[in-house]
Amino acid sequence: MITLTSDFGSPYPAAMKGVILSDSDARLVDVAHDLPRQDVRTGAFWLREILPYFPPAVHLVVVDPGVGTGRRVLIVEAGDHRLVGPDNGILVPVAERLASEPTYYATTADSPASATFHGRDVFAPLAASVHEQGLAAVIEEDRFEQVEDVERIDFPEPTVEAEEAAGEVLAVDTFGNAITNIPGEFLADHVGDRILVDGRETPVRSTYADLPPGEPLVTVGSHGNVELAVNRGRGADAFDLETGTPVFLALTESDR
Amino acid sequence: MITLTSDFGSPYPAAMKGVILSDSDARLVDVAHDLPRQDVRTGAFWLREILPYFPPAVHLVVVDPGVGTGRRVLIVEAGDHRLVGPDNGILVPVAERLASEPTYYATTADSPASATFHGRDVFAPLAASVHEQGLAAVIEEDRFEQVEDVERIDFPEPTVEAEEAAGEVLAVDTFGNAITNIPGEFLADHVGDRILVDGRETPVRSTYADLPPGEPLVTVGSHGNVELAVNRGRGADAFDLETGTPVFLALTESDR
Amino acid sequence: MITLTSDFGSPYPAAMKGVILSDSDARLVDVAHDLPRQDVRTGAFWLREILPYFPPAVHLVVVDPGVGTGRRVLIVEAGDHRLVGPDNGILVPVAERLASEPTYYATTADSPASATFHGRDVFAPLAASVHEQGLAAVIEEDRFEQVEDVERIDFPEPTVEAEEAAGEVLAVDTFGNAITNIPGEFLADHVGDRILVDGRETPVRSTYADLPPGEPLVTVGSHGNVELAVNRGRGADAFDLETGTPVFLALTESDR
Repeated sequence: MITLTSDFGSPYPAAMKGVILSDSDARLVDVAHDLPRQDVRTGAFWLREILPYFPPAVHLVVVDPGVGTGRRVLIVEAGDHRLVGPDNGILVPVAERLASEPTYYATTADSPASATFHGRDVFAPLAASVHEQGLAAVIEEDRFEQVEDVERIDFPEPTVEAEEAAGEVLAVDTFGNAITNIPGEFLADHVGDRILVDGRETPVRSTYADLPPGEPLVTVGSHGNVELAVNRGRGADAFDLETGTPVFLALTESDR
Repeated sequence: MITLTSDFGSPYPAAMKGVILSDSDARLVDVAHDLPRQDVRTGAFWLREILPYFPPAVHLVVVDPGVGTGRRVLIVEAGDHRLVGPDNGILVPVAERLASEPTYYATTADSPASATFHGRDVFAPLAASVHEQGLAAVIEEDRFEQVEDVERIDFPEPTVEAEEAAGEVLAVDTFGNAITNIPGEFLADHVGDRILVDGRETPVRSTYADLPPGEPLVTVGSHGNVELAVNRGRGADAFDLETGTPVFLALTESDR
Repeated sequence: MITLTSDFGSPYPAAMKGVILSDSDARLVDVAHDLPRQDVRTGAFWLREILPYFPPAVHLVVVDPGVGTGRRVLIVEAGDHRLVGPDNGILVPVAERLASEPTYYATTADSPASATFHGRDVFAPLAASVHEQGLAAVIEEDRFEQVEDVERIDFPEPTVEAEEAAGEVLAVDTFGNAITNIPGEFLADHVGDRILVDGRETPVRSTYADLPPGEPLVTVGSHGNVELAVNRGRGADAFDLETGTPVFLALTESDR
């Protein structure tokens, strides 16, 4: 199985599929091709949330603002999963979630000078090779070598105390839910209460439909983090949040 | 074969696929993941129009505004098709089209309290189980029981007489065609004529390109219903229609 | 393998898949279903760029503004590829790229009079038949005959001289890159220089990230043509271009 993730929109992903299927009979599964354009950090977040639900597979990932520059090509061994993509940090958070100690292999060969579509010309054939021949053969044949110095993405760390928590928005999903980096445990004893979100009193609920349509709420999303939402609406709009916006949560006076 | 339908946008459907493929080698086919958000009635309309073209399959459907509340989980036996989704009415119109007497099974177990993503955590594994083990084994193992009192969606009934018909818009498709609930038979003897659409004289044609680009028309869509369209344009805009808007058709004086 | 391409949006392509899978176990691969609506020329461009990356397959293509009129149904033999779609020109540029002398077969039977969804009712079952029974059997059984007089699309020819080139935009991709019909060779000796784009001095670079984010540039896209782009931005907006806009390139005084 080969999964495909990119920010290519349409129809470029089909060219990658054609290339892969010329070399492999692997099952292909699209993860997403509408990730925010050239936004490596948000892409890394979604991969980390989604790929762990897959059985062992080769995961082809192309969000690649540095295409055609000197950035290296990476293959990652993460347990029984294999990740193929650019060395810009996007593969690291998911690799570290899939395995406690992922191993990274980088190209030693120069990248082709002029290409603007490495997804089709470099990464897709590489993913097919990893699927067909296995990691060891590809590393030897294509002159990859093990490296430690991969690019990394530092997701911001929240500050969580007993009565307040400061974090930021990691991503806004297609429902408009604003997903923060604050762990859901902060809300554990307060479901049914109200807390302050950036100073605004907001009900804490276990799911959206616990309130009437249009009502803002704080909840714990499917990723385990605190999420700002509106039942049948867009939390990001109601709370004026986007990726990277700081979020400050505090218990109300009565809960302290 | 397992088909997948949701209002999840992207990339959440991939998590459902990962879960299914961890348990099953079924072929996966996407029906749509951009159904109007949490709009059970429009979802029910599209499922009823699309799923009957499939060979026997397990159909996973998640448009689920009541996620995390007490709403039941449903498995439907409709001929050789199996439908899996929430008990909010969305499965019923398609089930009744697939089989004259569909059988409904509902969970007796409590729904998990805190989940906001039952598509991934409840429905996807259930669809995989129905595919792998068959309906009877799942019903026994997961303690489903046959029920009659499922939630239903009442599609509005049109009023059709010899010279006029009153109905409403069931859905607007991606071409902007406004699909009504008025059966196409109303137009049968009038192709080539003009009729009144909400009082406006409009040509009746058998297909869009029977008129120049930009011209509004009345036709019979691929679903067999009266449709308001514009050749190479958006009928919903030209006639100022959206889902739920009443539509009144009448023969012109000369045709009566 | 059957690939599917259309301008249907969602969920109509699923009906085509259901029809095909009722007759065939072929692998299905989506090329795109969001091609510009009823825009045969842009569709023809994308097919010509994307399909050659696929291994031999049956390619189902439905961008069909003439649906329901007298336009013929076409099957094309292009090397080991088979193309199925309407006789409106969309299949010709890709067929001529896939094979030096493609062979065209057109229906002799009348098209069904009233259908508005030939993708589902005509083309999908035909693609399944070509896949399952092979070209020869379908031609005989469904009374196709070889024809020469197919509809053609004339992509505009650029005028390329040593110091200047005049062409036009063939398509704008999802990154906002404006893809022209001017061959990349025009820029070959000028990477690193600046040239005039409609009179505006613009750097020529081998890839987007050779300039800071937000900077406009001229480059050679993955299709081999001159492309107007902005690093991490939308070239079509920066240069005020859309499909069909003329583009004039000229060397600067110092490069002449």
